[in-house]
Amino acid sequence: MDIFERFKTAARADWDSYVDHAFVRQMADGTLPQPAFREYLVQDYLFLIQFARANALAIYKSRTLADMRKAQSAVSAILDVEMDLHVRLCARWGISAQELEATPEHAATVAYTRFVLDRGAAGDLLELNVALSPCVIGYAEIGRTLLPKISPDHPYAEWIGEYGGDAYQEIAANARAYLDDLARRFMPANRFDELASLFAAASRLEADFWQMGLDAKD
Amino acid sequence: MDIFERFKTAARADWDSYVDHAFVRQMADGTLPQPAFREYLVQDYLFLIQFARANALAIYKSRTLADMRKAQSAVSAILDVEMDLHVRLCARWGISAQELEATPEHAATVAYTRFVLDRGAAGDLLELNVALSPCVIGYAEIGRTLLPKISPDHPYAEWIGEYGGDAYQEIAANARAYLDDLARRFMPANRFDELASLFAAASRLEADFWQMGLDAKD
Amino acid sequence: MDIFERFKTAARADWDSYVDHAFVRQMADGTLPQPAFREYLVQDYLFLIQFARANALAIYKSRTLADMRKAQSAVSAILDVEMDLHVRLCARWGISAQELEATPEHAATVAYTRFVLDRGAAGDLLELNVALSPCVIGYAEIGRTLLPKISPDHPYAEWIGEYGGDAYQEIAANARAYLDDLARRFMPANRFDELASLFAAASRLEADFWQMGLDAKD
Amino acid sequence: MDIFERFKTAARADWDSYVDHAFVRQMADGTLPQPAFREYLVQDYLFLIQFARANALAIYKSRTLADMRKAQSAVSAILDVEMDLHVRLCARWGISAQELEATPEHAATVAYTRFVLDRGAAGDLLELNVALSPCVIGYAEIGRTLLPKISPDHPYAEWIGEYGGDAYQEIAANARAYLDDLARRFMPANRFDELASLFAAASRLEADFWQMGLDAKD
Repeated sequence: MDIFERFKTAARADWDSYVDHAFVRQMADGTLPQPAFREYLVQDYLFLIQFARANALAIYKSRTLADMRKAQSAVSAILDVEMDLHVRLCARWGISAQELEATPEHAATVAYTRFVLDRGAAGDLLELNVALSPCVIGYAEIGRTLLPKISPDHPYAEWIGEYGGDAYQEIAANARAYLDDLARRFMPANRFDELASLFAAASRLEADFWQMGLDAKD
Repeated sequence: MDIFERFKTAARADWDSYVDHAFVRQMADGTLPQPAFREYLVQDYLFLIQFARANALAIYKSRTLADMRKAQSAVSAILDVEMDLHVRLCARWGISAQELEATPEHAATVAYTRFVLDRGAAGDLLELNVALSPCVIGYAEIGRTLLPKISPDHPYAEWIGEYGGDAYQEIAANARAYLDDLARRFMPANRFDELASLFAAASRLEADFWQMGLDAKD
Repeated sequence: MDIFERFKTAARADWDSYVDHAFVRQMADGTLPQPAFREYLVQDYLFLIQFARANALAIYKSRTLADMRKAQSAVSAILDVEMDLHVRLCARWGISAQELEATPEHAATVAYTRFVLDRGAAGDLLELNVALSPCVIGYAEIGRTLLPKISPDHPYAEWIGEYGGDAYQEIAANARAYLDDLARRFMPANRFDELASLFAAASRLEADFWQMGLDAKD
Repeated sequence: MDIFERFKTAARADWDSYVDHAFVRQMADGTLPQPAFREYLVQDYLFLIQFARANALAIYKSRTLADMRKAQSAVSAILDVEMDLHVRLCARWGISAQELEATPEHAATVAYTRFVLDRGAAGDLLELNVALSPCVIGYAEIGRTLLPKISPDHPYAEWIGEYGGDAYQEIAANARAYLDDLARRFMPANRFDELASLFAAASRLEADFWQMGLDAKD
């Protein structure tokens, strides 16, 4: 069992509250109200910016060139590719670049992103990656679960296709293998509980992020 | 007009949403449900720990011994005095030390505390203190407003007495003068809007912290 | 006068001790002993790694996407291009990749790189860039001064050609314009002396870095 | 064998270059030139300020109140007690407070202090304490070795008496036990070599700090 599986097992209830959140279930069956998805999209844009900062922090915290390059490729992927993809996805949902930039961060966005950044700044490279992992790897798990269940005209087909698709599945598989590698290098056996509870906290904050979408008013 | 007054003026709506929050009004008129106050007390304990970390960060970020000592006295005040006072206050509300330590941080606690810590880690000493100021100085403002309106047998007399009392009013006045000093040293005129919007964001996160109390179930 | 020129003027003696160091003069007239240059090359490789970390820190510290992308392009340039160029330059001087990786950092390398990283971590984006500027922009100045004086068979023609050449001159010109922009955004007039003395300290540490080369034994 | 002993054993040559440095031997036999000691005293004052910052960083990095209080007591000891003692010791050697404040940091001071601060900022609480340990615990070892060999009228009796005396020996013993505790909590077996090499690097930078004293001109 790799370290990610061990974290999921140890934090089962919190993990399920995230990957099986009502937002996800409603997205799966197509009943998710569009304003909920739009709120999520806008906040996810603001989230991505902080995510790039978290990966830049990982470069700074790295002690080997290999670790630095790993994190650097994540920063590049976000700043050079994903931000643009996200802006275009938002455009198709009627959200302009101006709106993305003018919207303040929701408390749920602040909570998860700054939690990750603070654990990363105060802790080591492993802690930073544990805090990031529910997002990076969890989205792949959600995408993989939902993809086989939907038809091409499903209202959320694009999002599900992106995270369930091969390219993202491979990114997440690499992140998972890297997390396992970091755990082998930095985690003494007696730190497992502390890190599993960090993983649980991050999963709850991800669940809150979905909830923020659901709570959005028209 | 000192810098704090200028921030308040620039962020009026967000500031009012915090200092005049329903939680505060219900505390003032004594109708605040006790579970709301208890939830607040428990989370405020967890908040204090992060607050001590934020002030430790200020020592680290300081470039002069005077700045270091300023921040160090805040860390001492929290770790050596306030934590114990808070534990005793909680005990009087039936909350044990064990409960304080076992309760996970609420998302609203995470959001404000990590927002402050992240702005502090990424920015300069001024930004860190701007992010902290709604809490340090706002509590004094709330205490001063509420204190004249209550009788000694008011259910929240102890809390109001602490923050409305002379000792805390002086702490806040010092923090306010220090913020003004930092603004003179570190803030070019064209940064005012950016810092006012940081102040506004911190005020909103404080309002969310009150709301967390109100939302508490019995 | 742009901010860089103002810093140079304020820190004239320290600046000259760096750009007109005996190492530079001996490089210019071709009398620099090869062991001195080799020592410099090896330590400069170790320096580059810390430099990439410093630019990653700048991404993390940035508050705008434009600032993040600026710093990200510097990280990419170092990790994706300059490291390889440097390894190949070293190879031509008989220094293997294994030697580069096995050599411990000299105290002079530690002093300048960690000084920059600490000012960056504790201060703001401007301080970080001021601390970096003697290196980024100073090398361009040295290269530009030396290039017209040398013939193609000069023993240090490659190094001088690289830093005196158009590509690097443009990088440095951009860094200089960016520093000016940051100063306009983040520097109140009364901070000039503090930042000029940071600039002076960084220049002295760069001079020490040259001295380390000169002191190298065969 | 506790972790500190294991580090010493693994980094024997570097450790000896520090605790048995010519500066130490000349201090022991009373032949150390006074200008060397004065240079050391002035730089040690500047060193202490950075040391306080490093311990403040440890508060910020701590995940438990016990760890926070441990680091907070070190910050207090430095800012509230040791700085004043040091200023008075300097006064007895004819060094005024103004001179202490006006002297720039030597490269050797920058190298060791910023190395510690950077490892602390980028790494975890254990790394920070490993980087600090040659100083905190090494001074006790030097003091203990020298104290029995000197008479009360020895020119460096005060310094040797302070670090060889019971009060400091106990501080160092506590720091040593704490380092062992941190290693048990945060160090997987396979990280030993990396941390021993951090310990070795810190010991070399301490040796360079003595050398700076020896190199001082009258």
